[in-house]
Amino acid sequence: MNYQRFFEDAISKLKTERRYRVFADLDRDASSFPRALWRRGGDHAEEVVIWCSNDYLCMGRHPAVIEAMSRAAVRHGVGAGGTRNISGTNHPLVELEAELADLHGKDAALVFTSGWISNLAAISTIGDLLPDCLILSDELNHNSMIEGVRRSKAERRIFRHNDLAHLEELLIEAGPARAKFIVFESLYSMNGDIAPIADIADLAQRYNAMTYMDEVHAVGLYGPRGGGIAERDDVMRRIDVIEGTLAKGFGALGGYIAADAAIIDAVRSYSPSFIFTTALPPAVASAARTAVKLLKGAEGAELRAQHQRQAMLTKHALSAAGLPVMPNSSHIVPVFVGDAELCKRATDMLLERHSIYIQPINYPTVAKGTERLRITPGPLHTDAHIVDLVEGLVDVWKSLKLPFAERPNVIEFRPQPDARCTLPDFKRAAE
Amino acid sequence: MNYQRFFEDAISKLKTERRYRVFADLDRDASSFPRALWRRGGDHAEEVVIWCSNDYLCMGRHPAVIEAMSRAAVRHGVGAGGTRNISGTNHPLVELEAELADLHGKDAALVFTSGWISNLAAISTIGDLLPDCLILSDELNHNSMIEGVRRSKAERRIFRHNDLAHLEELLIEAGPARAKFIVFESLYSMNGDIAPIADIADLAQRYNAMTYMDEVHAVGLYGPRGGGIAERDDVMRRIDVIEGTLAKGFGALGGYIAADAAIIDAVRSYSPSFIFTTALPPAVASAARTAVKLLKGAEGAELRAQHQRQAMLTKHALSAAGLPVMPNSSHIVPVFVGDAELCKRATDMLLERHSIYIQPINYPTVAKGTERLRITPGPLHTDAHIVDLVEGLVDVWKSLKLPFAERPNVIEFRPQPDARCTLPDFKRAAE
Ligand SMILES: Cc1ncc(COP(=O)(O)O)c(C=O)c1O
Ligand SMILES: Cc1ncc(COP(=O)(O)O)c(C=O)c1O
Repeated sequence: MNYQRFFEDAISKLKTERRYRVFADLDRDASSFPRALWRRGGDHAEEVVIWCSNDYLCMGRHPAVIEAMSRAAVRHGVGAGGTRNISGTNHPLVELEAELADLHGKDAALVFTSGWISNLAAISTIGDLLPDCLILSDELNHNSMIEGVRRSKAERRIFRHNDLAHLEELLIEAGPARAKFIVFESLYSMNGDIAPIADIADLAQRYNAMTYMDEVHAVGLYGPRGGGIAERDDVMRRIDVIEGTLAKGFGALGGYIAADAAIIDAVRSYSPSFIFTTALPPAVASAARTAVKLLKGAEGAELRAQHQRQAMLTKHALSAAGLPVMPNSSHIVPVFVGDAELCKRATDMLLERHSIYIQPINYPTVAKGTERLRITPGPLHTDAHIVDLVEGLVDVWKSLKLPFAERPNVIEFRPQPDARCTLPDFKRAAE
Repeated sequence: MNYQRFFEDAISKLKTERRYRVFADLDRDASSFPRALWRRGGDHAEEVVIWCSNDYLCMGRHPAVIEAMSRAAVRHGVGAGGTRNISGTNHPLVELEAELADLHGKDAALVFTSGWISNLAAISTIGDLLPDCLILSDELNHNSMIEGVRRSKAERRIFRHNDLAHLEELLIEAGPARAKFIVFESLYSMNGDIAPIADIADLAQRYNAMTYMDEVHAVGLYGPRGGGIAERDDVMRRIDVIEGTLAKGFGALGGYIAADAAIIDAVRSYSPSFIFTTALPPAVASAARTAVKLLKGAEGAELRAQHQRQAMLTKHALSAAGLPVMPNSSHIVPVFVGDAELCKRATDMLLERHSIYIQPINYPTVAKGTERLRITPGPLHTDAHIVDLVEGLVDVWKSLKLPFAERPNVIEFRPQPDARCTLPDFKRAAE
């Protein structure tokens, strides 16, 4: 048997379907983000502007966060040296968990090495600990949540995206005696739309279900202290388990859940994907904690305002130019293409001609036929960067004869009352 | 329905079975490792000696590795800012993958955020890409490998631990037409025993099966360049996929596979657990790469010799004192207890009376009735530390009336010809 062939065939298939992915090798410079060097192979490198990072608030290059990482590395060393149980529970990690519990107003928090693992571990473990549990899962839930649902022995039903009537139907069908566990996201990152959290919490209360919400694309970014959409909407205490990442708004690496003490203790004690892996390094924990702390305060509020301003300005400018921005009420700016090949060609051309780096979003990240560009403005994208982006996209849209919006759906630009138009006083990261 | 109760009951069950785990909050000091501060709660902290870290070679506190982390953090920022596909492929990560491919003499390598995820992703994806695949899995495989096998659609058969005859039987039963994928470890970390790699490779060749080997507890530690047991035994090229971690011998965080280009490209392209998660930060990649590089050279050879010497000396000293060391030919020193409660009491007493920190190993990490202490000597444990360890253990064994070995199975202490008895010239980590 020629095993090699199966792998080669699998790759050819992707190439035929025009969804073979080439990773852009980026040399980020903390002092000039969102500009970066794109290494094209060999020694050839070119400066580009990154427009698709999920380091939404640029916390990954915040001098205090960098400083926290370096200090902790020098003090504690680079790695944790063991699983949480076997010598790996380091003090910065314990402090980070307390910081996160406080952020979400919960008893306790538990940190994992990624948001992906936190969803896999927590959803599957809770699903398994609740006897005869029925998991009700939004159809657009992220892969990591789907994996958690699959990994659990619990039965699952999928409800239509953000569809309260459908969710209610399934809750009624399950009956009052059965354990019910509703799993959803606050902010869906590929569309940028936001769940009706309070309504879902109402349903959960009425039909006595437990709730689990992924706030990965919202923590740090929304709410007076960066607690996410649930904090902004004042519904944090109505959601049983809040899950987040340390790798997007907080600029580092890792994931977590925050909940009642008993839930946290049970997940901590029963999840193989938590138990059997090395703990997050003290240096990463320390950097993440610094970011969480900073974003709770005044500097956080300012960064969030500036972030929203640049996101709204980008949406406004792109839609005014007739580009097919998919409307939503968040910081995500998706621009519709609807074809894998054209999506790839558009982004290649943006990179080649305009030094703008936006990764094409194709299957399996979004459904086939809904391929798009997903643009993520940050507080360090200047108004001039936005002007360049609009020019670049218009040129590409014309060159590839991509359709402009039929009736330019001009998204109004309303800076928030407290938004400052100047950039926050970011110090240049120490060299 | 009172959901709270299910979680509380789950916790009570663990307490009744005496396997509720309390994580030791450790404040490691890179400059005095393996000594650390143990925080008992409040402001109370005590100095202890860690004897159960998997930072086997102390690379986590190596000044050059720490320096690499700090430098990369200052230069590139703290996080990767995206998944591998969406802006997260940072240059240090690309360099790390090249370094690892070279280490194992393979075309390419792929880095994940943990060894746990690398096993889940690679085993399940390969199992799924091979049509009608039969996975043959060693019964003592690590949880992450079992999760990979379970996650795959492939059928699985378990072969008795390191049992070549049983493996051959299953290979014959499967027949020549079927895709067969043998999944095993080189060094089983809880017993410390080593797989007959060459023999397994022979069987794989005879019956035309693919092979996947976890070298998590061997990379960095064995072989002239730290390539693991397979390098030491000169069989690297006979194993199709080698999996390793960056979090043990290399002292950092992350996991990887190394293999032919087509296999790597297929896993890269098809694994949800690789695709849908933020990439390893540049600072972690840079630290890990520095460790891998260092361990390929002369300093690595010296550290490995010193590590083996301290491990052999520890085994020798413990068994000479009549303690029930479970024999094996690796650096792991398991001491048998066989009871969860006694295991916990022994380690509590070691900590309280002797300031020696060894986590008890109980179910689900090992089978019930085989509870043990698992001691991991490192190159920075001095001979004086070993003397303290023996005294501490003997005291605890007597106090708890634990059985000594019936016939003290004295493990001979033969320093390797090239072992230096002095510690390698570790500089104190810069403060
Ligand atoms: C909704 C959602 N949840 C979880 C994750 C995983 O988080 P992490 O990148 O920390 O693994 C992601 C993306 O990566 C996500 O988009
Ligand atoms: C055999 C084996 N494989 C994989 C892993 C997971 O590696 P990591 O800690 O990098 O997740 C471990 C332990 O943690 C292990 O013992």
